[in-house]
Amino acid sequence: MDSMTMLLFGATGDLAARKLFPALFRMFLDQKLPEPFWIVAIGRRAWSQSRFRSRVEKSLLDFCQDRSADFSRLPAFLQRVEYYEMDVRQPQAYLNLHQYVRSGEGERLIGDNRLFYLSVSPDLFAGIAGNLQSSGLSQTNGWRRLMIEKPFGSDLASARDLNRKLGEVFAEEEIYRIDHYLGKPMVQSLGTLKSVNPIIHAVWNSPYIANVQITASETIGVEERSAYYDQTGAIRDMLQNHLLQLAIMTAMHVPGRMTAEEVRAEKRSVIEAMRPLGQEDVRLHVVRGQYSNGSIDGTPVCAYRDEAGVAPRSMTDTFVAARLFIDLPRWQGVPFYLRTGKRMNEKSTRIVVQCKSSEEAELPNLVVIHVSPNQGMTLRLNLHAPGMPGQLEPVEMAYVPNQKHLPESYEMLLAEAMRGDRTHFAHWEEVELAWRWVEPILAAFAENRVPLHHYPAGTNGPDAANRLLEEDGFTWWLDPEDEPLLTPVHAR
Amino acid sequence: MDSMTMLLFGATGDLAARKLFPALFRMFLDQKLPEPFWIVAIGRRAWSQSRFRSRVEKSLLDFCQDRSADFSRLPAFLQRVEYYEMDVRQPQAYLNLHQYVRSGEGERLIGDNRLFYLSVSPDLFAGIAGNLQSSGLSQTNGWRRLMIEKPFGSDLASARDLNRKLGEVFAEEEIYRIDHYLGKPMVQSLGTLKSVNPIIHAVWNSPYIANVQITASETIGVEERSAYYDQTGAIRDMLQNHLLQLAIMTAMHVPGRMTAEEVRAEKRSVIEAMRPLGQEDVRLHVVRGQYSNGSIDGTPVCAYRDEAGVAPRSMTDTFVAARLFIDLPRWQGVPFYLRTGKRMNEKSTRIVVQCKSSEEAELPNLVVIHVSPNQGMTLRLNLHAPGMPGQLEPVEMAYVPNQKHLPESYEMLLAEAMRGDRTHFAHWEEVELAWRWVEPILAAFAENRVPLHHYPAGTNGPDAANRLLEEDGFTWWLDPEDEPLLTPVHAR
Repeated sequence: MDSMTMLLFGATGDLAARKLFPALFRMFLDQKLPEPFWIVAIGRRAWSQSRFRSRVEKSLLDFCQDRSADFSRLPAFLQRVEYYEMDVRQPQAYLNLHQYVRSGEGERLIGDNRLFYLSVSPDLFAGIAGNLQSSGLSQTNGWRRLMIEKPFGSDLASARDLNRKLGEVFAEEEIYRIDHYLGKPMVQSLGTLKSVNPIIHAVWNSPYIANVQITASETIGVEERSAYYDQTGAIRDMLQNHLLQLAIMTAMHVPGRMTAEEVRAEKRSVIEAMRPLGQEDVRLHVVRGQYSNGSIDGTPVCAYRDEAGVAPRSMTDTFVAARLFIDLPRWQGVPFYLRTGKRMNEKSTRIVVQCKSSEEAELPNLVVIHVSPNQGMTLRLNLHAPGMPGQLEPVEMAYVPNQKHLPESYEMLLAEAMRGDRTHFAHWEEVELAWRWVEPILAAFAENRVPLHHYPAGTNGPDAANRLLEEDGFTWWLDPEDEPLLTPVHAR
Repeated sequence: MDSMTMLLFGATGDLAARKLFPALFRMFLDQKLPEPFWIVAIGRRAWSQSRFRSRVEKSLLDFCQDRSADFSRLPAFLQRVEYYEMDVRQPQAYLNLHQYVRSGEGERLIGDNRLFYLSVSPDLFAGIAGNLQSSGLSQTNGWRRLMIEKPFGSDLASARDLNRKLGEVFAEEEIYRIDHYLGKPMVQSLGTLKSVNPIIHAVWNSPYIANVQITASETIGVEERSAYYDQTGAIRDMLQNHLLQLAIMTAMHVPGRMTAEEVRAEKRSVIEAMRPLGQEDVRLHVVRGQYSNGSIDGTPVCAYRDEAGVAPRSMTDTFVAARLFIDLPRWQGVPFYLRTGKRMNEKSTRIVVQCKSSEEAELPNLVVIHVSPNQGMTLRLNLHAPGMPGQLEPVEMAYVPNQKHLPESYEMLLAEAMRGDRTHFAHWEEVELAWRWVEPILAAFAENRVPLHHYPAGTNGPDAANRLLEEDGFTWWLDPEDEPLLTPVHAR
């Protein structure tokens, strides 16, 4: 791996503390960081080097405990982290930063490769990019890469605008757009799951598949992000990016080893095949929901409209469900159902591939990809219930990796960006086409052309989301109340 | 279920103590016995009723502990067991027995249905059957059924002879030949596994399957059966019956619900399609082995020829491996490898279906049906090793039922025989065709036309058995030394 400088904007922020420094420390322990390597940790706070490093140390102690870590190596890691105070809105400051970085690179014999990580408010993206250019920081003799977090715009127009501005400084192949679901090992395996497994290959096509269900449910509400969220909603926050990416990863076909470019071409062909929603279609295929008061784990929680910072008559979607068709021969007639919501009855992200039923078996085979909170895969099959002639019972086969041994998304994605592998980052074309696909939904919501269904906090969402599947003769699988079905009869 | 009398010949024997009474007691507890019902427990020993019942009680306490049982109901069960002393070689004794049974049936208001279970030496089968007839015991106004244990003959001629004699008394549809592997729920599920599971159906045919491997290995030697075993060998003791039945169950195709007759027709069509071995073929497709001294779990054990009761120059096969083709379109070109042996390095009966490899994946997908000691099913798939680009790792998905909740073979089979369901018993045609298939092997062994390979006790058998697969580019899967392969790289 090339030696490099990582410039981390927003180094005193929450993401840096919870995810980025823990991931970098893990990579350091696993010798997955380049050498030489340093992190220029940029923040606005007037903190001393030692104060900042103590804060990083504390966050590592807090957030690296789930997997055993060798904390005796903490000082060696912290030596690679230099805090740099600056106001990223001040163009002048970038000249000083440039000077500082060049001098540090010289001291450390680091090649002219720079990884810019923007862990800051998205409204700062374009400004920072411009300043990187005008200060000369982004002109390197080696490579330069830009890593950014969602949101990539709030609609098609704003996304295009942001992309144009970033494009004035960075080429598309230098931009690494993070979708942290794409950093999950189980999700990364989706593309090749079929090509390296005849068992999956045999079944993974429309003659065998009845439907695909993708759920990303949360139990939390809007927390301290209410003002932002009330302007955003579930479509923008989850469906346009994460859920569509999971749908694409499920639907794509990667025949063996493929370059990042080939993977992108395949992803584009899938997203281009997503059947567009006409103005009338939104009402038929999309369900909008918002949580009312209810309870989570027995604790009463307030309605979305009663959250601090939310407009009392807000029509914002805290839940959305959609039916989507992918007009490729292998997915002909197979509905993809997407569903996401806040204040639901469990925290779970999963992909359920429901096989067509055989004549004999009442319950269909399911292939379940568990994405979060735990990763893994389960198959649901039917076996004869022992001693009960003619009676079938569902049984489950599970692949449950030791979660502590799985790298975190950010470890995966940082390592990939450092290697220059863009396979698991969102390409602009994907972002643009995804915005284009959701535009009719955003318009219909804005114009209140679809009803807003209220669902009690702590439930599976509005009944309308169940009816969406019932219309096609299906139901959502693996909702918490279904769980007992998966226990074989003889083990109950 | 019809009320009935069960006449158990060999009631003081080992099988009765270890398997039959525990199974009957379980069925009693689970209310799976007919009512009214009684067991006439026939033995030669001059035991009192109470002595016999104490013995049954002791065996239940010994052999029903693995699954919780309500021993408070033991007295109620024992009331249904009546010990009857007789010498089964004495025709006169059957007249008295008949009298006893009729009077007991009258007292208990039991219909004229009789289940004869012969848990005795096979050389007594024909004689008992004849005496049942001449005494009138087997003439009932209701039904009569005969359950017998293997061996069903020791070669084609003796099997035909035995069958002819039994056939003079019982019709084929009244004979229930026990192969206890066919009583295992996982084995019973094999036939319909495909039809009720699209996931399995999609992959379960020759375009996807490279080979099928059926192993039945034991760590024990010949124990106290040496004199019998030295005249028998692994072909007769295991391959002709158990292994061929497992191969048939794996290869058969049961589209949904089928009657016992339809299942038998399908099994017959599979066994008829087994490619016969010509005189020269035996040397090419069959490996004969015999254990030499070695060690089991660190304890030295003697060679087969040094076992008490074994001829010092015995050429008896304690191990056999065979390659078999089933000339049906769906199994075209798919070798079935069968292997069984004593004094091997593990006790395991399993069926491994090896899928053809994809170009990308070095390690093939496996579907493993675990038959013994634990039942279950595992799939081995390939996933990308997280954080190791381009590297695949095998992962395992497992269906592991709670073994304590699975009925024992004898519970399954007794219940099926009591219901009159012959689906999971060996039909005469199967027995005859299986003997016919192994005849060339028996002849080649008898004439020493194939080498006898010695293998150290506590190993996987002779190298020749490995070469049998290597010739085709394969290896045996899941031998104890392979086990670590199944642990994902990141979990090691």
